[in-house]
Amino acid sequence: MSNLQEPIFDVAQLAHVEILSPKPEETVKFFNQFLGMEVSEVSGQSVYLRAYEDFYHHTLKVTESREAGLGHVAWRTSSPNALERRVNAIKAAGLGRGWIEGDHGHGEAYQFTTPDGHLMELLWDVEYFRATEDKKTELLNRPQKRPDRGVPVRRLDHVNLMAADAGTSAKFMMETLGFRLREQIVDDAGTILGSWISVSNLAHDIAIMHDPSGIRGRFHHICYWYGVPQNLYDIAELLKDNDIFIEAGPKKHGISQAFCLYVYEPGGNRVELFGDAGYLIFDPTWEPVVWNVRDVPGKGDVWIGGELPESFWTYGTPAQVVKTAETQP
Amino acid sequence: MSNLQEPIFDVAQLAHVEILSPKPEETVKFFNQFLGMEVSEVSGQSVYLRAYEDFYHHTLKVTESREAGLGHVAWRTSSPNALERRVNAIKAAGLGRGWIEGDHGHGEAYQFTTPDGHLMELLWDVEYFRATEDKKTELLNRPQKRPDRGVPVRRLDHVNLMAADAGTSAKFMMETLGFRLREQIVDDAGTILGSWISVSNLAHDIAIMHDPSGIRGRFHHICYWYGVPQNLYDIAELLKDNDIFIEAGPKKHGISQAFCLYVYEPGGNRVELFGDAGYLIFDPTWEPVVWNVRDVPGKGDVWIGGELPESFWTYGTPAQVVKTAETQP
Amino acid sequence: MSNLQEPIFDVAQLAHVEILSPKPEETVKFFNQFLGMEVSEVSGQSVYLRAYEDFYHHTLKVTESREAGLGHVAWRTSSPNALERRVNAIKAAGLGRGWIEGDHGHGEAYQFTTPDGHLMELLWDVEYFRATEDKKTELLNRPQKRPDRGVPVRRLDHVNLMAADAGTSAKFMMETLGFRLREQIVDDAGTILGSWISVSNLAHDIAIMHDPSGIRGRFHHICYWYGVPQNLYDIAELLKDNDIFIEAGPKKHGISQAFCLYVYEPGGNRVELFGDAGYLIFDPTWEPVVWNVRDVPGKGDVWIGGELPESFWTYGTPAQVVKTAETQP
Amino acid sequence: MSNLQEPIFDVAQLAHVEILSPKPEETVKFFNQFLGMEVSEVSGQSVYLRAYEDFYHHTLKVTESREAGLGHVAWRTSSPNALERRVNAIKAAGLGRGWIEGDHGHGEAYQFTTPDGHLMELLWDVEYFRATEDKKTELLNRPQKRPDRGVPVRRLDHVNLMAADAGTSAKFMMETLGFRLREQIVDDAGTILGSWISVSNLAHDIAIMHDPSGIRGRFHHICYWYGVPQNLYDIAELLKDNDIFIEAGPKKHGISQAFCLYVYEPGGNRVELFGDAGYLIFDPTWEPVVWNVRDVPGKGDVWIGGELPESFWTYGTPAQVVKTAETQP
Repeated sequence: MSNLQEPIFDVAQLAHVEILSPKPEETVKFFNQFLGMEVSEVSGQSVYLRAYEDFYHHTLKVTESREAGLGHVAWRTSSPNALERRVNAIKAAGLGRGWIEGDHGHGEAYQFTTPDGHLMELLWDVEYFRATEDKKTELLNRPQKRPDRGVPVRRLDHVNLMAADAGTSAKFMMETLGFRLREQIVDDAGTILGSWISVSNLAHDIAIMHDPSGIRGRFHHICYWYGVPQNLYDIAELLKDNDIFIEAGPKKHGISQAFCLYVYEPGGNRVELFGDAGYLIFDPTWEPVVWNVRDVPGKGDVWIGGELPESFWTYGTPAQVVKTAETQP
Repeated sequence: MSNLQEPIFDVAQLAHVEILSPKPEETVKFFNQFLGMEVSEVSGQSVYLRAYEDFYHHTLKVTESREAGLGHVAWRTSSPNALERRVNAIKAAGLGRGWIEGDHGHGEAYQFTTPDGHLMELLWDVEYFRATEDKKTELLNRPQKRPDRGVPVRRLDHVNLMAADAGTSAKFMMETLGFRLREQIVDDAGTILGSWISVSNLAHDIAIMHDPSGIRGRFHHICYWYGVPQNLYDIAELLKDNDIFIEAGPKKHGISQAFCLYVYEPGGNRVELFGDAGYLIFDPTWEPVVWNVRDVPGKGDVWIGGELPESFWTYGTPAQVVKTAETQP
Repeated sequence: MSNLQEPIFDVAQLAHVEILSPKPEETVKFFNQFLGMEVSEVSGQSVYLRAYEDFYHHTLKVTESREAGLGHVAWRTSSPNALERRVNAIKAAGLGRGWIEGDHGHGEAYQFTTPDGHLMELLWDVEYFRATEDKKTELLNRPQKRPDRGVPVRRLDHVNLMAADAGTSAKFMMETLGFRLREQIVDDAGTILGSWISVSNLAHDIAIMHDPSGIRGRFHHICYWYGVPQNLYDIAELLKDNDIFIEAGPKKHGISQAFCLYVYEPGGNRVELFGDAGYLIFDPTWEPVVWNVRDVPGKGDVWIGGELPESFWTYGTPAQVVKTAETQP
Repeated sequence: MSNLQEPIFDVAQLAHVEILSPKPEETVKFFNQFLGMEVSEVSGQSVYLRAYEDFYHHTLKVTESREAGLGHVAWRTSSPNALERRVNAIKAAGLGRGWIEGDHGHGEAYQFTTPDGHLMELLWDVEYFRATEDKKTELLNRPQKRPDRGVPVRRLDHVNLMAADAGTSAKFMMETLGFRLREQIVDDAGTILGSWISVSNLAHDIAIMHDPSGIRGRFHHICYWYGVPQNLYDIAELLKDNDIFIEAGPKKHGISQAFCLYVYEPGGNRVELFGDAGYLIFDPTWEPVVWNVRDVPGKGDVWIGGELPESFWTYGTPAQVVKTAETQP
């Protein structure tokens, strides 16, 4: 038997995401007060946060910027050797940027971009969150007590990016980093309009969707997880009363079967909240689920709860100046 | 960097479980009518079933027998090479039984036992379930329509075994097959009373718990998953009205944080139902959560909903003749 | 103090609803197999059904007819004297039809119509459902075991009618029968477009909404109650896989705050399912909640989960021939 | 027909409850920070609070006292005439105390006691809560925005009292005030050990249970309502991490079918939280459900989720000095 058949298990997980916000104070308040996230560190123009069941120093970095959008996406590898192997593969693909010394919460990391230009990092060395005495809980598998603010999210789930050429960026993630294709939207011409891919048992750790604007490197959303479907109604009530724009949901996706809610944080970035993450994939020879774009409305986009609005397929950050006013009421 | 540091990813998933029943018709009715599972095949003294989101031919084999208990547990590897590597490791550990040609739903499999004597199989070649036209659904990531019987479970989740020497069997699964230790119960003397271990992102694909009876090779439970916490109340109502013994729950476990219900199927085997599977583990350097047995009551066993009854820690199948009458009302 | 200030408590509850169906076998199968309702009696062109927590002989009568629509709505009074008083009031209002001897499940009843022409009955004498031995449950406040078919509804909740002049019919129900106004939709001209009224603590036992078609006496929907929000997702999955048209939901209404799902049964009548009934009203001097029709979209119609489709405001049974094809995909 | 057959509709609702606390600051913090209730007024040794969907000035008055226990229970009548009629009936029963001028949130009220000595009031004139601009919501049937603290309860549900002679006090409430018997626990000798009675469609606005201590006038619990079963798990997690004693639940009661959680607030009084209120009673000739005390364990007390602990039947406030330490860990 040949080693060529062996799957790659070198990337273990989504470690953190950096988003840019033109209204950083309001953005941080959104995550802290409404989603119940904890501030780990404030440094320069950035605030680092984590959900109460996130184990590392942070899973979200909010950085002040002129426009909303993606800062970067960081992945943790399965081992130091795995990091070395993947860095070599990225270099071979010609998309490497080079090593950085680290940041709050982690050590050295290798920077690279997707073919569409989204900045990413690979890293191994991470710093764990350690609760102070007043936040320690007797539930030993939980890093701290449940917060009493808002409707607290439990952990980072996934990230979703828009790309002018969505298929090429997904292919890079699969071939170079070992992501596995779970679900996909294609049109009659075979153009890949969206790919849901993962290194874990989740139906996706990242999705890459077609950006009809043709702009490269835009951000679609970051998703945090509740694990309790009902909590989406609790947070939706709180957000609606506090003038946070709810774009769609709660609904059950067809793709991934996740139970979802989409809102825009005050800085303009889309945030998804997961009541549950849908189905898990354990099958090592998983046959990707392919949706023709014609079957997406009312089936692939939303299985229960109606269709997604047009803005879901067009709005990303940075937003196009002309379109923003129309898209976000 | 050394290859010795690399984790083993050779076992991909729990494939199926065979249970033995002295009342096979009632056992099959329980899974079919109340849990909404589908019968894939009837052959000899065995009936093969699957939940409606199980992708393979079956995840449960019910075989008629004089006593309740475990038939065998089957694991699917990550690749053909991975199967070869793990068979070699099992042989080296001296616990191999040899190859079988296969069974309904899968091809050749390598049989072995745990140190405690539970029969297991490793396999690669599986047969997929293909829905007939009337059962096909437009939800493309679901292998068939949702059944209209009972409160239908969605997929196999995990298996739990009792062992006279629980630590040794867990150690075998970890060292020989690559399972990772997630949570553990120990006493003051350091004796391992229970191990929750997995090859996936689940907090456990299998648990191995101390059997105070000293009997070897007993079965604790098989678990199916709903993914919807509320469904445990729906199925509990249905089972209670139909004279199925409910041992405990719905409750939220401390260990795994899963939302659980325990019942005994008519043949006497314990069945767990998961409202949700609790937290997932993505961290490649996960530090195992260790519970002192003194902290288990009201914390480790059940975080929300009271403690587990004594029978949870003592009842397994085959049941001890003398104890059965006392344990199962 | 004057007796004129005293509220009227003469009508106690919605007793049952008769709907007409051009496809009675499919309609009965819908209620029996998917909603888990029990058939109490089959007689002539009618089938009588009840939910498993309905205490009387039936709450639904399905009668074969050329067109879908309302048969009649029956109300039970608080006492025999109350029946006498209300019959006198109806006669004084000039809308009485006269006494009938009774039907399966109840004794004599007084027939009348709303100003818009919907047929109704007032009655006192009812027959209770008595479970056979195999259906008896140890839960003494429940008339029978939970069914194992579909996702079983628990009890009748309310009825909703369309009227060419919605305000006048609501006024009749309030002044003549003692219904209390809970919520209302009006336009800038003060025209009443919808009234949610009740004799119980529910936000409505009946709603009467404006029919833009100008047709008199049409039926909007009948609603059954689960009491468990999550069950709407369970039944929506089952109905979607079985080609039942889902018009809207699950969503949380603004008006009533109920958690709702709207579907069309195979005969064409709209059926609402309630995850929960929203808020209850105990205040004896309740100040009606008045919504300007401009504030209904995204607030009054649906508080969480998006707006209701246009068909919700226009489709009723009997359906207009021309519009049916457009409205029901 | 005779007027003697007519039911009494003179009492409309439970208006508010006063509880006594030896630790008033901690008690108020419990209701305010964890249950998300709002403080309406602080006056003398009392703090007045309401849930965010309570419409009146307050539904809870917390008064500092040497011992925990009941202050009083207040009921609102259906009309001014109804108040007059019931006051006359109370006077005739010999249990009247006389009129008081009023309190914060309401006007004159007539005080009386149950035969067991619990202080109660009947009143008509109430003050409504009016939200300040920053708390106003566009959900017009809700008096204010959903709070962002804790897991906020929505409204007062019911009160439960212990009585040395439980049957006599329940009989007084029924005969003098028009409460209707919904469910009851009796022993073989016919002694009434508990009565669930209501003036509304709820299965109980008040329950009166046997106090085995023989002490008169003790308080069992006050109950607030979520209307969302899942929220009991959310609040249980928050309370457990904050050292609030959880006595039982979440569980589904047999009696009332409500989904319940019992905790002791820091002052020592038991507080129940309702995920849902169970079934509603609309039948004007409701046949009371009678449980023999032998059928209560595992059926009447709890239908799903195990039995209630012994303390549920013995612990009340004021607590017996000797028993407190044993009962509350």
